[in-house]
Amino acid sequence: MPRSPDGTRTRRGELKERLIESALSLIEKQGLASLKARPLAEKAGCALGAIYTVFPDLDGLILAVSARTLAKLEAHLDAITVPDVEGRASPHEVALQRLVALALAYLDFAFAHRASWRALFEHRLPEGRPVPDWLIADQARLFDKVEALLEPLVPQLAAPDRATLARSLFSAVHGLVLLGLEEKLGVMAFPMLREEVARLVTAMARGLAAT
Amino acid sequence: MPRSPDGTRTRRGELKERLIESALSLIEKQGLASLKARPLAEKAGCALGAIYTVFPDLDGLILAVSARTLAKLEAHLDAITVPDVEGRASPHEVALQRLVALALAYLDFAFAHRASWRALFEHRLPEGRPVPDWLIADQARLFDKVEALLEPLVPQLAAPDRATLARSLFSAVHGLVLLGLEEKLGVMAFPMLREEVARLVTAMARGLAAT
Repeated sequence: MPRSPDGTRTRRGELKERLIESALSLIEKQGLASLKARPLAEKAGCALGAIYTVFPDLDGLILAVSARTLAKLEAHLDAITVPDVEGRASPHEVALQRLVALALAYLDFAFAHRASWRALFEHRLPEGRPVPDWLIADQARLFDKVEALLEPLVPQLAAPDRATLARSLFSAVHGLVLLGLEEKLGVMAFPMLREEVARLVTAMARGLAAT
Repeated sequence: MPRSPDGTRTRRGELKERLIESALSLIEKQGLASLKARPLAEKAGCALGAIYTVFPDLDGLILAVSARTLAKLEAHLDAITVPDVEGRASPHEVALQRLVALALAYLDFAFAHRASWRALFEHRLPEGRPVPDWLIADQARLFDKVEALLEPLVPQLAAPDRATLARSLFSAVHGLVLLGLEEKLGVMAFPMLREEVARLVTAMARGLAAT
């Protein structure tokens, strides 16, 4: 979009940004289900109709919010540090430790940003409207991190099978995080939940490597 | 409750039963979020107020529906048959095969009763109202089945730790089932989802046994 002399492009960008951050803050307070256009416009300090000058509809805005949450999650996962075991441990052992650290970082992110993390999975587009490719690409970058670690762990697997396995491993960890944080199976202290995530990811990786 | 000469107890029981089955059928059609008292009373063929003669409120009814779904799930899991490997395989291998069969049966149940299975996890009681003990006991019976299989698989674990592990294993399988069926990470053919569940449960069990 060409930048007009009066700075339309910049102002549109700023409005978009304000709407995304306002939506995130409302979701963190009340959850996705309570997100409505009017309080959102109020929070962002714009007219109700202005939302629809930068987003096609509320679903379009929520997709942008999901992308923002995924970007925050990605930055969080990229900041992982694992104890310096390189040189002293096998590539297999290093990958295992990184995989456990990745799963724990996912748990910590979900714990710290409960509502926006939950919104990622709660939001459903209307029937027949596909998830946009750019959001799928954002998701895929997260799975790439898992896939890269699976290479030294299960070298016997072909790449497409490794891609499937990365999604399965993520789903299993997601289940632990989800039922653990929602306390659906009873209350579990957070440090214990971390131990359980570490225990199961280690077991899965060891078991997969042995097959 | 003493049975009155006019059969009050029987009629109350019948009304309860009709309300539970009507709620289940409405949930299967439209999901838990759309369950409202008026259409429910219509479906059950009773007056709106009659609901509250047998349940304290709609939440109380939904708890009874959850108990019904858990009972159906339990019957489904109890009907599992595994290939007759006893005598030819070690107790460890038999338990592993049963554990995989249990996880697959859970997947199949969720697939066949999608909405009522989802309702089990979606329903939240109002803040401060605890899940009743009888429903927790219903849940616990399902975990007992997993715990019993873990005994030969991870004999080194103490009983309380085995109980925790049973819940963790369930949560991991639940995550696979949830994200697989909701197609949140892309579409996966059902037979492939079954293979993934079998692969990860086998890996977890093997990895746990090796620790």
